[in-house]
Amino acid sequence: MREVMLGFMGEFDLIETFFKRPARHATLGVGDDCALLAVSPGQHLAISSDMLVEGRHFLSTVNPRHLGHKALAVNLSDLAACGAKPKAFMLALSLPQVDPHWLSEFSQGLWALADAHDIDLIGGDTTRGPLNICITVLGEVPASQALLRSGAQVGDDIYVSGHLGDARLALEVFRGNMKVPAPVFESARWRMEQPTPRVALGMALRGIAHSAADISDGLLGDLGHILKASGVGAEIETQQVASTLACISSKEFHDQLDLASQLALTLSGGDDYELVFTAAPDQREAVAAASQTAQTRVTRIGYISAPHHLVLRDAKGHVMPHTFASFDHFKSA
Amino acid sequence: MREVMLGFMGEFDLIETFFKRPARHATLGVGDDCALLAVSPGQHLAISSDMLVEGRHFLSTVNPRHLGHKALAVNLSDLAACGAKPKAFMLALSLPQVDPHWLSEFSQGLWALADAHDIDLIGGDTTRGPLNICITVLGEVPASQALLRSGAQVGDDIYVSGHLGDARLALEVFRGNMKVPAPVFESARWRMEQPTPRVALGMALRGIAHSAADISDGLLGDLGHILKASGVGAEIETQQVASTLACISSKEFHDQLDLASQLALTLSGGDDYELVFTAAPDQREAVAAASQTAQTRVTRIGYISAPHHLVLRDAKGHVMPHTFASFDHFKSA
Repeated sequence: MREVMLGFMGEFDLIETFFKRPARHATLGVGDDCALLAVSPGQHLAISSDMLVEGRHFLSTVNPRHLGHKALAVNLSDLAACGAKPKAFMLALSLPQVDPHWLSEFSQGLWALADAHDIDLIGGDTTRGPLNICITVLGEVPASQALLRSGAQVGDDIYVSGHLGDARLALEVFRGNMKVPAPVFESARWRMEQPTPRVALGMALRGIAHSAADISDGLLGDLGHILKASGVGAEIETQQVASTLACISSKEFHDQLDLASQLALTLSGGDDYELVFTAAPDQREAVAAASQTAQTRVTRIGYISAPHHLVLRDAKGHVMPHTFASFDHFKSA
Repeated sequence: MREVMLGFMGEFDLIETFFKRPARHATLGVGDDCALLAVSPGQHLAISSDMLVEGRHFLSTVNPRHLGHKALAVNLSDLAACGAKPKAFMLALSLPQVDPHWLSEFSQGLWALADAHDIDLIGGDTTRGPLNICITVLGEVPASQALLRSGAQVGDDIYVSGHLGDARLALEVFRGNMKVPAPVFESARWRMEQPTPRVALGMALRGIAHSAADISDGLLGDLGHILKASGVGAEIETQQVASTLACISSKEFHDQLDLASQLALTLSGGDDYELVFTAAPDQREAVAAASQTAQTRVTRIGYISAPHHLVLRDAKGHVMPHTFASFDHFKSA
């Protein structure tokens, strides 16, 4: 951390005010050239970095408190996908100007989620420039129990956690492509701006799941990574996937959203920060118990097959065409 | 790492081409949700993040190969300041467009320095947005031997490594504020664009130095952090500091640069990526031996004093005024 940039910076002393707190777990916290971290015996360190850019990962109108939450949440979601327990994080921040209100709100969103996971901000960097938030999270996982993309086995059940598609629904409303009742929009917007990283579920699935990934860019894309890394294929029951869309639990709205839209949102929506994972059929009770422990819904959406491709089936078991591309940061607006 | 952003991205497959290599040391490399790293028994993990923004940390005209080197070098410099051995790094990159030539050059500069330190790129993120490079480095240091800012003791000698001020000289020439002969400029520009992180020196100073920091924002500012963290002051022999300016070794140029400019450049220049450290006077031979081992020049520039302020002295021992503010990213252009 180039702390001189904080200490000698006049108005940038504000940043120190918002982001410097005593570390509870690390040996050394914010302020030296490096942060020092003790890793527990028998544990591997799990590390992930995500960079969030305005206009691509969040809208300029976003509530900064929600942004602080989301910037950390998307990183914690990567730890969840490995079954790791979060331990600490680094924050690198480029800001066009120093806005105390913005910083206060942003940091409160960040701290609330950090506190919920009992993790420290141990270092980072601040500079002036176009708004950019780069967080690196550090976690621990027993060396032999990390959940990987490469462990899926033929015959495994495929599951997803929580709800898919609602975040994308909110984005499409923002873009003016869809219209939904106000309560549906508010709930979908919450899912977009305040995702819940499935850390407890990831940890509960250690020793149970054969493989896992987080769903950040759409189920089909992220499941595709498991299939590729494991050298297997999948059969997906699309009506099970569509059933994970939270907004259709609203009776009035249920009939307004056709099945094709439900499938596009849930199969390829992106920004879900749920887990997709696989486990052997004889682990169904164990998966249910993990779901219970983590207080997180899981839905079985299909199974792993030997042929190297992904097959979508409708409610009658008929094969459906693949017309749902993964959300692509470089093709979409 | 949101690998779907690489795998499904058409032209962004290029990024995978440039940044994906088999990891040599990590348990898992680029491609899963997290990278997994084994930390050696008895070692602490040392972590640092630096974010580089165009127009602030580098000029738009910079050779991308040099930029690749520098982006990693400034991070390794933080590890050096802690006496840590580099182990791995994460790269988060925001790019306005995918330019294969730029990516090829940037990655070659990055790999060359990574290879020199035998470290792996183990993960990260890529997105579209204003050019921003955020690197997080991970290193190891024995728990009790980390060099901290807080360890300086009254009576310690103060040393700096290598050369100070030349990088800032190059910047001032770029800005049109100074004129220097072409060979002087080329050598100063090399110092600005291709800093050498003092990793070997930092490791050699384990158990010898009481405190250390890297000089990224100017000697006075970074030494100031040691003084503040240690609750001590310092007496600085400014002519010793000025003597570290490499460009004045050029005979013709020596007489053209007045002492005030030499002092401004070396005391407050910034972008040096050298180490400032302190050690007890009875460690002078050990410091000389560490310098020899690391093949890195060190210069004694003063000593740690009890009063809580920093005193600058001229060649005759007279106290000089403090007119050299630290380089400030938010006040300078």
